[in-house]
Amino acid sequence: MAKQYASLRNIKFMLHEVFEVSELTKSAHFGHLDHESLEMIFDSGVKIADTLLKPYYEELDKKEPQFENGEIKAHPHIKTIIKAMGDAGFIGSTLSLEAGGQQLPELFASAMGFWFAAANNGVTTYTALTPGAANLIATFGSQALKDLYVAKMLSGQWQGTMALTEPHAGSSLHYITSSAEPTEHGYYKIKGQKVYISAGNHDQVENSIHLMLAKIKGAPAGTKGISLFVVPQKRIENGQLVDNDVRSIGIYHKMGQKATPATHLGSGERDDCRGWLVGEPHKGLTYMFQMMNEARIGTGIAGASIASAAYYASLEYAHERTQGQPLSLKGQDPNMPQTPIINHPDVKRMLLFQKAIVEGSLGLLLQCSKYADLMHTTEGEEKAKYALLLDFLTPVAKTYPTEAGQQAVSAGVQCFGGGGYCNDFPVAQMYRDIRITTIYEGTTGIQSQALLGRNISMQNGKAATLYFQEVNKTIEEAQTYSELQKYAAILKAEVANLQRVTKHLLGYAARGETELFLADATLYMEMFGIIAIAWQWLIQGIIAKRALLVGKMQGDDENFYESKLHTMKFFFHYEIPKTQGLTTRLLDTEVLTVAIEKEVCIKLGRKITKTL
Amino acid sequence: MAKQYASLRNIKFMLHEVFEVSELTKSAHFGHLDHESLEMIFDSGVKIADTLLKPYYEELDKKEPQFENGEIKAHPHIKTIIKAMGDAGFIGSTLSLEAGGQQLPELFASAMGFWFAAANNGVTTYTALTPGAANLIATFGSQALKDLYVAKMLSGQWQGTMALTEPHAGSSLHYITSSAEPTEHGYYKIKGQKVYISAGNHDQVENSIHLMLAKIKGAPAGTKGISLFVVPQKRIENGQLVDNDVRSIGIYHKMGQKATPATHLGSGERDDCRGWLVGEPHKGLTYMFQMMNEARIGTGIAGASIASAAYYASLEYAHERTQGQPLSLKGQDPNMPQTPIINHPDVKRMLLFQKAIVEGSLGLLLQCSKYADLMHTTEGEEKAKYALLLDFLTPVAKTYPTEAGQQAVSAGVQCFGGGGYCNDFPVAQMYRDIRITTIYEGTTGIQSQALLGRNISMQNGKAATLYFQEVNKTIEEAQTYSELQKYAAILKAEVANLQRVTKHLLGYAARGETELFLADATLYMEMFGIIAIAWQWLIQGIIAKRALLVGKMQGDDENFYESKLHTMKFFFHYEIPKTQGLTTRLLDTEVLTVAIEKEVCIKLGRKITKTL
Repeated sequence: MAKQYASLRNIKFMLHEVFEVSELTKSAHFGHLDHESLEMIFDSGVKIADTLLKPYYEELDKKEPQFENGEIKAHPHIKTIIKAMGDAGFIGSTLSLEAGGQQLPELFASAMGFWFAAANNGVTTYTALTPGAANLIATFGSQALKDLYVAKMLSGQWQGTMALTEPHAGSSLHYITSSAEPTEHGYYKIKGQKVYISAGNHDQVENSIHLMLAKIKGAPAGTKGISLFVVPQKRIENGQLVDNDVRSIGIYHKMGQKATPATHLGSGERDDCRGWLVGEPHKGLTYMFQMMNEARIGTGIAGASIASAAYYASLEYAHERTQGQPLSLKGQDPNMPQTPIINHPDVKRMLLFQKAIVEGSLGLLLQCSKYADLMHTTEGEEKAKYALLLDFLTPVAKTYPTEAGQQAVSAGVQCFGGGGYCNDFPVAQMYRDIRITTIYEGTTGIQSQALLGRNISMQNGKAATLYFQEVNKTIEEAQTYSELQKYAAILKAEVANLQRVTKHLLGYAARGETELFLADATLYMEMFGIIAIAWQWLIQGIIAKRALLVGKMQGDDENFYESKLHTMKFFFHYEIPKTQGLTTRLLDTEVLTVAIEKEVCIKLGRKITKTL
Repeated sequence: MAKQYASLRNIKFMLHEVFEVSELTKSAHFGHLDHESLEMIFDSGVKIADTLLKPYYEELDKKEPQFENGEIKAHPHIKTIIKAMGDAGFIGSTLSLEAGGQQLPELFASAMGFWFAAANNGVTTYTALTPGAANLIATFGSQALKDLYVAKMLSGQWQGTMALTEPHAGSSLHYITSSAEPTEHGYYKIKGQKVYISAGNHDQVENSIHLMLAKIKGAPAGTKGISLFVVPQKRIENGQLVDNDVRSIGIYHKMGQKATPATHLGSGERDDCRGWLVGEPHKGLTYMFQMMNEARIGTGIAGASIASAAYYASLEYAHERTQGQPLSLKGQDPNMPQTPIINHPDVKRMLLFQKAIVEGSLGLLLQCSKYADLMHTTEGEEKAKYALLLDFLTPVAKTYPTEAGQQAVSAGVQCFGGGGYCNDFPVAQMYRDIRITTIYEGTTGIQSQALLGRNISMQNGKAATLYFQEVNKTIEEAQTYSELQKYAAILKAEVANLQRVTKHLLGYAARGETELFLADATLYMEMFGIIAIAWQWLIQGIIAKRALLVGKMQGDDENFYESKLHTMKFFFHYEIPKTQGLTTRLLDTEVLTVAIEKEVCIKLGRKITKTL
């Protein structure tokens, strides 16, 4: 088992040198924190990760939750983890002080979340869902709901979940049929089924609190009729917890992420399931987007963190495992001993590929987190700007780390050769674990439609303008360092190219050709993501270059900064070129995936045939 | 569970229309066969696949082999499968009539193998390894070895294996230490450990026959001192099978491919393991390359076939699963019912991507198989030409279907959404199963070094010249069809570009800069593979176009040919552009993965720092 799963040096670089968390702690909102207290919190988190998370990574995969006698039985160690995380304040780390949270910067909490998930991504689902659910109650719920639920959730006594998906309504929530009937007692009677509910109704907590979407009888059709309810597994009556008729119907056995059950729930089968409305009727989906957007960043973090664990596992192996001779010497000395495989350029390429994806992805995720924090430390137009940037980039921050992260983990498996395919090494599990991340919380296809179909044109393109201004600021700064000028120029050209592609695609939208506009949105996302990560790498390159120019550092630090520059260059020389093919396809007008209407076929003289 | 796993219509198209198996059966070597007999054999194979392979795909994954009391226990159904395959002649399908085989064309056997592996790729390892091992004995072994082993292996009574890898020697066989000491009785005493031996010593056959590499005491160092031995699990003494001291030490638990055990073997621990030399001493690796090259094509077939099964599973799901509304109508009618997801362009793109990879890969694999067959039906220079083409393309035929196949299966998982990640659908298993194929029988890195480092320059570039002549023939033919001219021109430009890149890389080789030459060999392979598959698609496009021009066909046939042309276009419009970024990187002279010597650093004024 590999010892390292993430780099503390890199986390400190990101927090303090790149994103300057100290800027935040100078503000009123984060004024209760300082460098020392943040260090202490991080250290306590690392201790939990090292002692309670990492050592159980493989065991929790092997002993997955079971559905027995109507109960969802998870591994008993889950209780220990949830309690420790609650006691240390990590479940409530980003919730406001008023709500009983720690009011930590998202920047810091995301870095911490990355660390936890790198140690054991399977268990962080439990402790990441609860604050999201609690925050929905804290933000939109009545005082009574807050008083009843939030503290118990943040302590880890109760589990929170997000209950959206139904058997026939996954990506399209428009069609959910779970229903809520008002009663004279203030609560609603809930009926319906929910599927894939992560951590739902498991036995390692006293109670599960489902933040559930349902339609109040008589509500408008579609998403405009969706309301949000608190539906506890057990409700309180006369000071006692009693069953609230949210039955565990079963669990799904998954390829990975086995530490957390995905539960099938049936509410109101005995007509005794009570739900309490959160906020106003029919605004449920809008509220839920708060949790969904947090969960999207969280899923991006999961992708980057699993890739981090796989990177350090394969890096360690590549240093230890010997095989063959250096290519330059091949055939020269049959008696020469074998060389560590890290000396083979193909292995080094796979390692740099992983590092470039992990550290670049983390950059984009922390960038988004910092935008979230700046919304708390600024006012008016500036605050609106950061809100817009966060909203704009969220689909990218969800997608790039998960899509590229899967490729990175696969490269990690490849470094291990046959061993990587066996349970003897952890990378096979990481390969299985990360596969869900491009599906969770809106698939890559959905995120891509959000980026191109919604965000690019948001507020008449204002968000996009703001984003490109941010990128340009970085380019301008990079131009002041001779070693970085070349990369600044590349990024500038890439941005111009992306804008050209965007304009071309918006042409379809302007003509009302929505299907043509969005047909290749996923490829647009891929291109957009590569360029966003190049931006993040250039930011990191600037900081590293600046540190090297100041000089007077120890050998380890010099290696760290040189490695940053090296990996930045790797990204520009190996990953950026991929935008060329994407550009060609995105500008290509040959239509191959959109069904052509009969009338158009006749007009074009095309035959009407079934192509699949 | 999806019903379809491969397309019979497509197999017939490939066998009869594209690769014209009837041309082969006109020859003396394959004259014992005709259209009718081949159809009968294929039908009997389909029956076995439908009744004995496909229905057990998931069960054999769930009940994987176990190591108990020193024995490798596989699922009892394995015995049934091996017997059925042996009885029907499928184990010996490509061995010569003289050796007791069926002497079927490789073209036909590969198509059949694709079908079997699409139905259940996990079990075909058993029945594909045995003929490879038997063929080594039949080709290079003494008459005594042939008499003793071949018939029992082809009937399925005995299992064959390839025993190469040792704990410290995987990709680099140079360093194997298994030893063979000659005795006066004609046999050798064998000592050593072998790991990852697929199907080794399992309990569903009477005996395992290991084709094992070992070094005769005093042999030259490195690969020039490797000999090949037949090392049976049980040897015959006085007409009885007795233990031959090849101990099963354990098995590896793998992420996928669970139907077949990967065994750890220890030979000669009691100093009583006997091995019989195959052919001459020290020529073992040369002989083994016969089996290895067959296994490489076989692994390519596994990649394409798993991708085929995932394609048909996700195609079926995409027709059945409804979700959302067509993009073009979004927001227009909240009461409109949901549409099958195949109508979403993003899903259609993922399906076409899969189809393009599956059918393109199958083309390249059958092309190689046909070259193998033509070696039997031609003489002299022509025969040499086909041998060279087969040798040249084997690493590509191993790599493209496995690398692109993994992406295709991943797209299949994505089509299923959350369901694709659960055991309820077979695609999660396919995703796990296919992951080994880029490692089996020489990793992608090894294949890529073989292509660029060896094959491109083979016989002063003759193989490459012959290959490009073949591609040019296709281009010229395509130019005669107006609909294909555009694609012929694209392929022509791609070939020219590939030659330019090749020339650039060979420049490093000419200067003796081997590490720089081969550093990005894997990316060269990726580029080469895409262009090779484009060539195959153009071949299929020509045949389809010709059929459509003849006309007078039924609706299903018309759909089939139109779909071929459509998928060919998809490949050219979506996959071919990927060569642009690869070209840029391969012509890029920035060195990032090759360790730079201290002296060079000083000369370049670079710092000597650790980059990883």
